[in-house]
Amino acid sequence: MLKLYGFAVSNYFNMVKLALLEKGLAFEEVTVYATQGEDFLAISPRGKVPVLETEQGFINETSAILDYLEEAGEGRPLLPEGAFARAQVRSLMKEIELYIELPARLGYAEAFFAAPIPAALKTRCREELLAGMATLRRHGRFAPYLAGEGFGLADIYFLYSIELACGVAKKLFDLDLLADFPAALELLTRLKQNPHVQRIAAERDAAMPAFLAMIQAKAKG
Amino acid sequence: MLKLYGFAVSNYFNMVKLALLEKGLAFEEVTVYATQGEDFLAISPRGKVPVLETEQGFINETSAILDYLEEAGEGRPLLPEGAFARAQVRSLMKEIELYIELPARLGYAEAFFAAPIPAALKTRCREELLAGMATLRRHGRFAPYLAGEGFGLADIYFLYSIELACGVAKKLFDLDLLADFPAALELLTRLKQNPHVQRIAAERDAAMPAFLAMIQAKAKG
Repeated sequence: MLKLYGFAVSNYFNMVKLALLEKGLAFEEVTVYATQGEDFLAISPRGKVPVLETEQGFINETSAILDYLEEAGEGRPLLPEGAFARAQVRSLMKEIELYIELPARLGYAEAFFAAPIPAALKTRCREELLAGMATLRRHGRFAPYLAGEGFGLADIYFLYSIELACGVAKKLFDLDLLADFPAALELLTRLKQNPHVQRIAAERDAAMPAFLAMIQAKAKG
Repeated sequence: MLKLYGFAVSNYFNMVKLALLEKGLAFEEVTVYATQGEDFLAISPRGKVPVLETEQGFINETSAILDYLEEAGEGRPLLPEGAFARAQVRSLMKEIELYIELPARLGYAEAFFAAPIPAALKTRCREELLAGMATLRRHGRFAPYLAGEGFGLADIYFLYSIELACGVAKKLFDLDLLADFPAALELLTRLKQNPHVQRIAAERDAAMPAFLAMIQAKAKG
């Protein structure tokens, strides 16, 4: 059976978890935090979660895992048919990752763990987040899903990145990234009605105390 | 015919150009710099190069373009067969992009345009670059190509990211990223013997004066 390594607070872990649930595939979750320990680096070369264990071995990097699941061909497809339509989904996913999720991560430590970041990084975080949201406004179709009529991988990236970005923008800049962007707000609301999304949110909330305890223990060294 | 938009100094432009040449596909190059002008944003939602124009429309983001070319199915394949083998190539590409190319880009302005960057960014640039190279050492197969016996997309990412990263590390930190990494140095040397790679390098060199003039004009505002 497929095994998904990571922890329920990680947004990338939850992207793969939602894909597995939506595809209807059987899988087992193995709770592990991202570390630079040799054991973990042996299955995840940069020490990041998630990692998927398959019969043939381990796969790391969320986008590679999601493409693998599509190409393995079991369960409900989460990419449309046709190379061009698939390319639009993949470029939307990449835009969300590079221009929204990564900039948000610059401000993550200060927003959620009161660990101040340098002013230069903070400025970059804000500018990049605004440019990333403008990118989504240009490219997203919201018809009603991000890439068109069907739910798929672009929506999964959207859901778990926009939430993080909105949290960071609110805390650091008192900025509402979804103000004047009703299409994105509607999609977020629609996605949160999905029972698998609700299950993942509940499991994230349940896992939060252990995650925070781990972070605090690490901070104390 | 396929049209590739961008400029010959861009390493991402050159990734797609090499893929097209290696696949043996006919294409036309359209020289355009990355801007935030409305005309360009209409074909590239974040204002980045490259962009590929197909009969069905425009595709942005290098990885989405490369996947599109594979899925369109014309010319020599640059991904191996089998979902698991393809996943290893894709995770290597992602590791190179996120953990080597992006950190190198943090130091790019100071390394090549004498535009000093904040100390915090410089420290991050160095630490991330070293961690990225360690990732490649763990995951790369170098047998003799990055993902195994055949040349493919992982090698294209490797070639055009490692060169940039080595340049930045040398200029900013007097650091040789390939010292004690003979497998990577051998692969780089092998790739540079490829006639298409040599053609792209010559065209990059020829385009450099116009690119530098554009950057200087921009700096003068």
